[in-house]
Order: sequence, then structure tokens, then C-alpha cells
Amino acid sequence: MNYREESLKKHAEWKGKIEVVSRVEVDTREKLSVAYTPGVAEPCLAIKDDIDKSFELTRRWNTVPVITDGTAILGLGDIGPEAGMPVMEGKCALFKAYGDVDAYPLCIRSKDTEEIIRTIKLFAGSWGGINLEDISAPRCFEIETRLKEELDIPVFHDDQHGTAIVMLAALTNALKVVGKKKEDVKIVINGPGAAGISIAKLLLADGFKHITMCGIYGLLYDGDDRLDSAQKEIAKVTNLEGKRGTLADGLKGADVLIGVSVANCVTKEMVASMAEKSILFPCANPTPEISRKDALEAGAYLVGTGSSEYPNQINNVLVFPGLFRGALDVRATTVNREMMIAAARGIASCVTEDKLSREYILPYAYDKSAHECVAKAVAKAAIETGVAKKPYRV
Amino acid sequence: MNYREESLKKHAEWKGKIEVVSRVEVDTREKLSVAYTPGVAEPCLAIKDDIDKSFELTRRWNTVPVITDGTAILGLGDIGPEAGMPVMEGKCALFKAYGDVDAYPLCIRSKDTEEIIRTIKLFAGSWGGINLEDISAPRCFEIETRLKEELDIPVFHDDQHGTAIVMLAALTNALKVVGKKKEDVKIVINGPGAAGISIAKLLLADGFKHITMCGIYGLLYDGDDRLDSAQKEIAKVTNLEGKRGTLADGLKGADVLIGVSVANCVTKEMVASMAEKSILFPCANPTPEISRKDALEAGAYLVGTGSSEYPNQINNVLVFPGLFRGALDVRATTVNREMMIAAARGIASCVTEDKLSREYILPYAYDKSAHECVAKAVAKAAIETGVAKKPYRV
Repeated sequence: MNYREESLKKHAEWKGKIEVVSRVEVDTREKLSVAYTPGVAEPCLAIKDDIDKSFELTRRWNTVPVITDGTAILGLGDIGPEAGMPVMEGKCALFKAYGDVDAYPLCIRSKDTEEIIRTIKLFAGSWGGINLEDISAPRCFEIETRLKEELDIPVFHDDQHGTAIVMLAALTNALKVVGKKKEDVKIVINGPGAAGISIAKLLLADGFKHITMCGIYGLLYDGDDRLDSAQKEIAKVTNLEGKRGTLADGLKGADVLIGVSVANCVTKEMVASMAEKSILFPCANPTPEISRKDALEAGAYLVGTGSSEYPNQINNVLVFPGLFRGALDVRATTVNREMMIAAARGIASCVTEDKLSREYILPYAYDKSAHECVAKAVAKAAIETGVAKKPYRV
Repeated sequence: MNYREESLKKHAEWKGKIEVVSRVEVDTREKLSVAYTPGVAEPCLAIKDDIDKSFELTRRWNTVPVITDGTAILGLGDIGPEAGMPVMEGKCALFKAYGDVDAYPLCIRSKDTEEIIRTIKLFAGSWGGINLEDISAPRCFEIETRLKEELDIPVFHDDQHGTAIVMLAALTNALKVVGKKKEDVKIVINGPGAAGISIAKLLLADGFKHITMCGIYGLLYDGDDRLDSAQKEIAKVTNLEGKRGTLADGLKGADVLIGVSVANCVTKEMVASMAEKSILFPCANPTPEISRKDALEAGAYLVGTGSSEYPNQINNVLVFPGLFRGALDVRATTVNREMMIAAARGIASCVTEDKLSREYILPYAYDKSAHECVAKAVAKAAIETGVAKKPYRV
């Protein structure tokens, strides 16, 4: 099927992938008087006296906007806020289907970091959490960091952390297949943007030791003045040997390649130079760094990509619905590193040892039990790290 | 029934009066690929090339946020943005039930006029229209005026115009009952706030001639320096005789009293001093300027109030669902005076002459045909005044 052609046709038929519905009846005088005036004054006053009650008397406990500025939509780049909305609506549909979260798409007509932060903050009392989406680096770092600092609801930039979480899950299970340990494996991450940097941070937090990033100037090392501020920061804690060189140099003897960069930048020769039982996750969208076929031919042992057409799709759809479900269920005030690692372990645990193989390291995105597993793991981690305002109810 | 007590109980049970649902299935690999990646890139690019396509390929054509800053919630005053949300959610439920509009509640943590304008503008690409709600005067005037000037989607402050429209509808039918003409009747509007001023403007636009406003300094007249800017403006086109005095002075010989002020400020003596077959619409919320019982005892011929417990409820629920339905159906770029008058006539026309009486001048808020009638009238007026971007399809 030509998905893009079919998608355009279907979008014209659907006229919107989400809608807002009423949960109450308002078709008689009495019902109107309870759901609306004059009765509604009472829940209003209850919230006035205790803002926390907004999580009990309105839908706030279950609402998450999916907000973009349209600057990094899929692999399409800066196509403008309105043009990003089909993706945002799609995410909202997935939020509902797999997390029962009431997500609502919003696009913002600004690329100014401070303006985006202020605008989102001003509306934050309407929501239980905030999902940032497809905002280009490096603005996305500052926007997320500041919102996390200044708000007391979970804020999550999916392109960074959703990708990092599902990548950690994939890598965790892939290492079981190849029989290597996270402390030992040498990992190269090609693409030091929002996703790549977040992956590196999460892997480090989970106990991986040997990570080298690679960008347009080659391998990232501490002290390279050409790097942007986020890259300089990550260069301090990766490539601890201070190796210089190209991607090809970095891959020699490496156990794992994680690609979040551009199409066709990895050759068969590079793959052939990697260690035994190498793991390749070339996830550039829509065309990967190297095709699955070429990677396998060149000697890769285990391959996963962003595509749904081959085994081992590494898809952050596995993350965000369950992650927010869990965070909302316990009224987490943030999404911390422990919750992210818990989400990754939750995903990884859905593939039992008897089923685990080179061609099956992750559950399918449409496997509901995987999302439930993520929700439980995240809720538990929120409670254990003391950021939950409510106990977990199954 | 104690509506307020019952309402608090019900709100705790409902845990939100609206929710967001998915209109598409995403439970297989193929469906995911059409509704989301990779297929969704195609509708994104179509909108990038032509932003108007956002009204065809996403839900934008049917979406309206209900936005408040929490400063004038019901009769409760400034209770804060989160505390206003039960009312906003209630409006959203009504929007869906009576206009099939996808309305979404938002509260904004600012009372700064410029900040509110900028914040709403930045998100405006997400929506087909904007409903402002319960924002206190005089900020609400500037906010609405500026948003109307600077955006090309309908912007509507319901407290001003919704009230004005239903009041015009009520008055139109009331005059038929008493057999008086709009050119002749003397009207006193008590309460020169957002609603009162909007009522005066709409009545003038519809051909009423003799209107006098009354506020805390008595009757409004041109040249009174104590008035705020909006009041000064309306004083130039009302009270053309320049009459001075109190509300009691204004009501002597008047045909109509419209009250959008405070409880119990009209006495039986004042009512008794009015003209024959007087019409009283004391609509202060929740306690009117004078009770229906007292007004009738003092000689009023026809009484309508804001309460659903008596005949002739003057309720702006009759307005906003149909008004936005009509505006969205033809992609109106604004809500102009002609569309407002058309909405009022649409409402008035729903009460046929054979049913019209002192006790039945308006359709019930839960009468679906009334809302459809409003929608058609508004769509037609938008087309006739050249502000519609689409033809009307029934």
C-alpha cells in the first residue's frame, strides 16, 4: 500500500482524527441545572478553596495537550505549526487508544523559546500533564527543562525521551540475545540532536559505560568548540578516551550502532568493521542510515529500525501512552529519570525469554498489554521516588 | 432539589464533563501507518503548501476553545482560572449537545490584557473559532476587539454578545405580546458592564431608539467623567435627552427594564411607575434585581429572568452552540453584528405566534430545533455579509 497517498485520502474523509464528546446529559432543565448553572457554582467554589480539587472535579486529572511549534515534524523539518497538526492529532488518537488519556492537539505560532515557555505555562492550569512534540533542537532542551522546573505537572518531550526510552528497551533485550553486558558494550550514537543526546543520557543513567556520539564534525569529544551547548555537555560524559575521527573510526570494534541521524550515512564496510554479534539500530526517518538488508549482509547480528515493515520496529508509540497513564494515575509532579528507566524495563519485560530472538526484541506498538505494563512500572517508580501525589490504584 | 449540593456530588462522580475520543482505529500495523507515521507526512505537506487545508485535513473546522481567566465566573467574581473550569467544561458539553461543536476548556493564568491576547493568538492556528468566557470588564472589550482585528477566525465573548443576542430575541417577542414597536419603546438597562453595554449596542443596531443605561452613578449621560472608557462611549449614543437621575427616575414611564446588575436593586414602587404593559427582564445572577413575583404584583405585564424555575428563562445557552455551528459551517472569518441579529431573530422565530404569550416568549434551552434555527440564520447572514469562506451545505 502507498501509505502516504492512502493517508491523504483518509484524512480528507475523516475530517479530524479526534473529537471532544460530552460525558454528561444536558437535555432537561434539571440536568442543565446540575451540570451547568446554577449548580456548577459549587464545584467552582470547591476548587477556589483548594486548587488540588481541580484534579477531582474536572477532567484535569486525565488531560494532556500535545504541543508543537511545527519546527521538526517527522523527518519533514520546519513545515509550520498548522502543518504539524495531523501528527499531533495522530498522537492524541494513540494516547486514547493505548493510554485512555484525553490528549488534545495544539500548535503554537512562535519559535521563540521564552514565548513558547510563557504561553504553555499560562495555560498549564488546564492540564494534568504536558507532551511536547516535534520542537527542534536546541530550543526543545531549554523549553522542556524550564517547564519542568516551573510547573508541578509532568512535562515530557517525546522526541527526546520517548525515543530514548524505547531505545533503552530495545538495547536491553538485544543484549540478552547476543549475551553481552551493558557495562562492557561499546556504543556509537550517530546524530547528536535532541533524540541522540537524550538516548546517551538515559543509557548512562541505566549503567552503560562506553558511549561515543558522532555528528557532522565526527566523533564528539570534550573541548571541541564547534559543538553547541547541549553537545558540549554530553561530550564531557561520553567518549571518555577522547577518541577523534569519523563515524567509520568510531564504529571499528563497536558493539552497537544507534542511528538517529540521516539516510544512508552508514556503509557496509563500516558494519563489517564492528565487533562480533553487532547490534544495529539505524532509525533515521523515513530512510534509515543503512537498510536492514545491507546491514545483515555486512555481518550485523541483530537489526532494528523505525519501520513497521520489518522485524524489531523501534517505535516510541510504545512509550508515551503508558508513561502518561502511569504518571497521571498517581498524580506525578514530574517525569524523572527513574520513571523513564522503569518505562523502558516495562517495555523490555513484555518480551518473555522464550520468545526473545534476533527478530523479536520489542512488543508490537498495538499490543495493549505492553502499554499497561509501562503504566504500572511508571506509576510505581513515581511513588518510589516520592514524586507521586496519589497512591496507585489498579 | 438543592442544585449546588447535587452538582458537587455529581462532579465528583463524573470526574470531568467532557473527554477527547479518537475517530480512527489504530489497532493494526496498517491502520497505524495511515493514521500516523509514515502516511501522515502527506496531509502535513498538503497543509504546509496551503494552510486552508488545515480546515479539511484536521479537526480544525469544528474546534472552539472555551477560554477564561477566571475573573468573572458566574456571579462568583474572580475565583481564579482553575476554579472556572467546571463552568468551561459545562459550556463544552453544551457546545457538543446542541451544536455538535468540539469545544475544549482552557483557563489562563494571567489578568494582563496584552498577555492574554498574545497567548490566545499564538495558539489560534489550532482552532476554527474562539469562545471567550467570564473575563471581567473592561479587559474583555479590549481582548475581544483586538483578537477580532488580528485573527481571521470567529471570536466571540459570550458574556457580552450571547447575553445581548438572547435579550434581543426575548425583547423582540415580548414586544409582539404587548403590541409595542421597537422604535417607540423606552428601555432602561441597569448595569453598564460587559453584558449591559453589548445589549445596548445590539438593540441600537437592530433599530431600537430610546435606550438609557444606569450604573452606580445613576443614569449614564454623555460627558460624565466618572464613567470608564466603554461607558463613556455608550453614553454618547444612549440617553439622547441627557436625562440625569437615579434608576427610579429612569424607570418612570419606561416600557422595558433590562437588568444585568445586582440582586434586589429594583423596588415594587419603581415597577409601578413604569408605562402600561411594562416588560421586565431582571437577570442578575443568581438573585434577580426584583423577583418575578414582586414584579408581577407591582404591575409588570411580562417578566423574564435568568432562572430556569420560572417561565421565560433568558439563557444564553440558546445562542452559542448554534452561533458557532453556523459560523463554522460556512467558515466565517468573524462574528459580525448582522450575524448576531440573525441569531436573535432565529431564536425569536422559534416561538410561533399561536404559542407566543406572556409566559412563553423564548424556546427552551434544550430545544434542539432552536439551535438548528440559530445555526442556519447565522450561516446565512455570514454569507450575505461576505465573511463566509465556504458555501452553506444543509
